[in-house]
Amino acid sequence: MKVLIVFAHQEAQSFNAALLARSVAELTALGHTVRISDLYAMRFNPVATSDDFGARRFPDRLQYDREQKYNLQQGALSGDIAAEIEKLLWCDLLILQFPLWWFSVPAIMKGWIDRVFVNGAVYGAGRRYDTGGLAGRRAMVVTSTAAYPGMCAPDGLVGALDVVLWPIQNGTLAYAGCKVLPPFVSYSVNFVDEATRHRYLDGYAERLRRIETTEPLFFHPLADFGEDWRLKPGIAAQTVGQGKPASR
Amino acid sequence: MKVLIVFAHQEAQSFNAALLARSVAELTALGHTVRISDLYAMRFNPVATSDDFGARRFPDRLQYDREQKYNLQQGALSGDIAAEIEKLLWCDLLILQFPLWWFSVPAIMKGWIDRVFVNGAVYGAGRRYDTGGLAGRRAMVVTSTAAYPGMCAPDGLVGALDVVLWPIQNGTLAYAGCKVLPPFVSYSVNFVDEATRHRYLDGYAERLRRIETTEPLFFHPLADFGEDWRLKPGIAAQTVGQGKPASR
Repeated sequence: MKVLIVFAHQEAQSFNAALLARSVAELTALGHTVRISDLYAMRFNPVATSDDFGARRFPDRLQYDREQKYNLQQGALSGDIAAEIEKLLWCDLLILQFPLWWFSVPAIMKGWIDRVFVNGAVYGAGRRYDTGGLAGRRAMVVTSTAAYPGMCAPDGLVGALDVVLWPIQNGTLAYAGCKVLPPFVSYSVNFVDEATRHRYLDGYAERLRRIETTEPLFFHPLADFGEDWRLKPGIAAQTVGQGKPASR
Repeated sequence: MKVLIVFAHQEAQSFNAALLARSVAELTALGHTVRISDLYAMRFNPVATSDDFGARRFPDRLQYDREQKYNLQQGALSGDIAAEIEKLLWCDLLILQFPLWWFSVPAIMKGWIDRVFVNGAVYGAGRRYDTGGLAGRRAMVVTSTAAYPGMCAPDGLVGALDVVLWPIQNGTLAYAGCKVLPPFVSYSVNFVDEATRHRYLDGYAERLRRIETTEPLFFHPLADFGEDWRLKPGIAAQTVGQGKPASR
């Protein structure tokens, strides 16, 4: 497989850097091709502005998503965005690796999504979820937490993991058309001992060995929704976002 | 009240800019004092790096949250962060106003949270939720969507609004100690007519007139959780994050 790892950690001595190195070694040994977008090292600009556009369809008033589509068509997106889109469309598997900050991705990765998941290629004109622009690809969240595992339990202090990750796993990766694999989470990395951190590294390598056959998470396809954009009568909610409680 | 509005939109001609202007006029007329952090206009830097720290407790390996605490104590945080912390601790009401991008805040606002919600002032040493550093303050999400209202219904295509906003409302604002007021959402702003947009403006002004007496959303206090960080036996989940289904 062609694997793109988008990586957001500043520190070469970090656990996340060790996890990245292990994944590259494992994936390469398995015969996969790996490319990395190391966002801090690239000094990736996460701020979406009119500077992203070499052309303007609506010069008087910035409408960011509409200019994304127009500039994609015109080949006028800024070079850093175009380069990331090329990597994104190249890959079969997209891995987002980041420390969980405020129940979400760090700003530098949010900006990668804001600027690279462009209207016209990744979504748009009704294409989303199973008809999204990244359909046929797999994607996976790889994250580390300060929180203990119990805090991310279905009735835990910070909330069920599938609720916490809903905006990323459903709202971004599944929305764009990816099949989303279960996340790989290294809990409370700063508080566990060295042996536990090694178990995390080994556990991730094991996950990667099964990456092509791992069953994706379920998200409702477009066909499950009616013209009012709500689940059709008779379709039972199978996700926390559509009303299924996290099992306790 | 002292109101801090953190605002993330690039375009002075936007609906969001009109909403901001209306809120400032309304709040001022009501006798409140308003300060604004207009993030794009400030060219706010959202990327958390070692440049944020004038001193280092752990020079060999960047541990961002631990350096936040140390640099806060030493008065060595970078000037742009210190200025925002001053505003944050000044306010009685924090409003985060942004267009909903990928079920979340734009990167520039995520970076404001990452860098300004510092360990040692906003949270830390066990202080969080009802014991968080911002306890006594109110907070509110004010957002606009491309999505139609039905899509954000409890069984809608993008998911229940309280699931979508869980990382911001629970994981950030409530975690920090704020009482979180119900969000004000302007749906599908680019697709509705002018009259509807005016109704949104009027609706927001009406919400602001009741801002001091509006009942906050419920989030479980720390005392509801046991030593395993899960809801104690007998405590019924009242939030989507802890297992209550969104009502359909």
